[in-house]
Amino acid sequence: MNKKDYIIRQISKTNKKNYENYVVTGVWHLLNDLDIKFVTQQYVIRPNGFALTDMFFPQINFHIEIDEPHHKRNIENDLTRETDIIDATNHRIKRIAITDDLHYINLQIKATVVEILTQIDSYKNENKFENWDLDKEFDPNYYKNKGKITVEQGAMFKNIAHACNCFGHNYDGYQKGWAKNNLNNTQYLWFPKFYENKEWDNKISDDGSLITERCKTENLREAHFNRSVLENIERVTFPRAKDNLGFTFYRFKGIFKIDKELSNLETGVVFRRIKTEVSIG
Amino acid sequence: MNKKDYIIRQISKTNKKNYENYVVTGVWHLLNDLDIKFVTQQYVIRPNGFALTDMFFPQINFHIEIDEPHHKRNIENDLTRETDIIDATNHRIKRIAITDDLHYINLQIKATVVEILTQIDSYKNENKFENWDLDKEFDPNYYKNKGKITVEQGAMFKNIAHACNCFGHNYDGYQKGWAKNNLNNTQYLWFPKFYENKEWDNKISDDGSLITERCKTENLREAHFNRSVLENIERVTFPRAKDNLGFTFYRFKGIFKIDKELSNLETGVVFRRIKTEVSIG
Repeated sequence: MNKKDYIIRQISKTNKKNYENYVVTGVWHLLNDLDIKFVTQQYVIRPNGFALTDMFFPQINFHIEIDEPHHKRNIENDLTRETDIIDATNHRIKRIAITDDLHYINLQIKATVVEILTQIDSYKNENKFENWDLDKEFDPNYYKNKGKITVEQGAMFKNIAHACNCFGHNYDGYQKGWAKNNLNNTQYLWFPKFYENKEWDNKISDDGSLITERCKTENLREAHFNRSVLENIERVTFPRAKDNLGFTFYRFKGIFKIDKELSNLETGVVFRRIKTEVSIG
Repeated sequence: MNKKDYIIRQISKTNKKNYENYVVTGVWHLLNDLDIKFVTQQYVIRPNGFALTDMFFPQINFHIEIDEPHHKRNIENDLTRETDIIDATNHRIKRIAITDDLHYINLQIKATVVEILTQIDSYKNENKFENWDLDKEFDPNYYKNKGKITVEQGAMFKNIAHACNCFGHNYDGYQKGWAKNNLNNTQYLWFPKFYENKEWDNKISDDGSLITERCKTENLREAHFNRSVLENIERVTFPRAKDNLGFTFYRFKGIFKIDKELSNLETGVVFRRIKTEVSIG
């Protein structure tokens, strides 16, 4: 996929929603800069719960929300346990009101573009802005060169092998959900799946700080529970997720460790996030 | 319908066609001028046959056609006998090529916007440009004040009564397809329908110069034929048409008169356009 395909596909997600399509294309055409990445329809966690923003600029943590009068969205509709949800607590959110006056909508689009350009400038001044690079964003070497990955930077890998190879492995392909961290033998790498299947019912809390792992096969549950408590190991965690275009990836969500107080046979094993960054190399 | 609704609806016609949506929104957002009207998906007659243009600017007779490689469009798909088809022989057509390089597509969009602005300037210099006015374009008084209507200007009326009232009538509503021209007793006003129904099979030729009227009821056909030949009257003709948003209107297509050589019982009565303008008041 090249940038053209990526952008056309992002815009196509707004096809059936006329005002989203209008605002998203307006902002994009006025920006007209292939160094800027955007995502349409990004699920976010905010202090007061979930939201779905209409246009997200990950390089500058900037979101656009389109406010249509009398248009209550059922944002849970497309939400699955694999939906990529990011923490937007410290992100900027710009609202654009849909009124009957198209001229006013156009003015808001222009004002939003100015805000985006200003935000980019301020990121550039702090050396925090990196041009959008489709190849780079899924290249493990990009992260390797940084020496660490963080939840805040939104580090993600196209497949499990890529993630493993940042921790001393050299895989071409790797399918298991569990691998050693060759850089730190007190840690394991964990690639959980949050959709419910025959054997497992796993989920992550809305704020991303707790993961519950529950074995569905009754006669195995106790053994799994006891083993997890016994291991008591740090889990460098990359849950499988899907973006709005349907592509699978593994986003770093932090280092987790079992919370013995919250865990029990009924609920399952509960892991609590203890760190939001990890060294790689 | 206000301009906002009109524009959003025009853009929504491109929803399922990603590149059309991209180019149409790009041109529109860069123009960003509510005095400029556009139509998406306008059927046109050209010297080499039908075409469907992707964005039509009626004030300056300017069209955009989007060229997608390996994308042969079946433009006859949505074409019905009521489809509004305009003669674009002397119109400007700008082609935009869809390549893999989005930056190049964006440059073409910008170049097109410059062409449109230049064309508007040149129309303004010749006093031929009129700001888009939603109320005016369907107001019979707008045409009355001009003293005549022409095929070239694309004169159209929202209903039959509006058209009749430009020719000395004073109707609130009028449903028949036939009325006197009170300004010229050698002429009638004619509002034919070109969809085939139980009684009639009427059509207009691709170039708009011939209309064939054929009675489908066999035992009435000869009487209709003979009456038409006998009348031999000038018909100021406003066929019923539908635009791409589904609205019905009556567009002036010229003054027609029977062509006795082409007419016969088998084909039907053939009328030939003899003038492309008519006085009103």
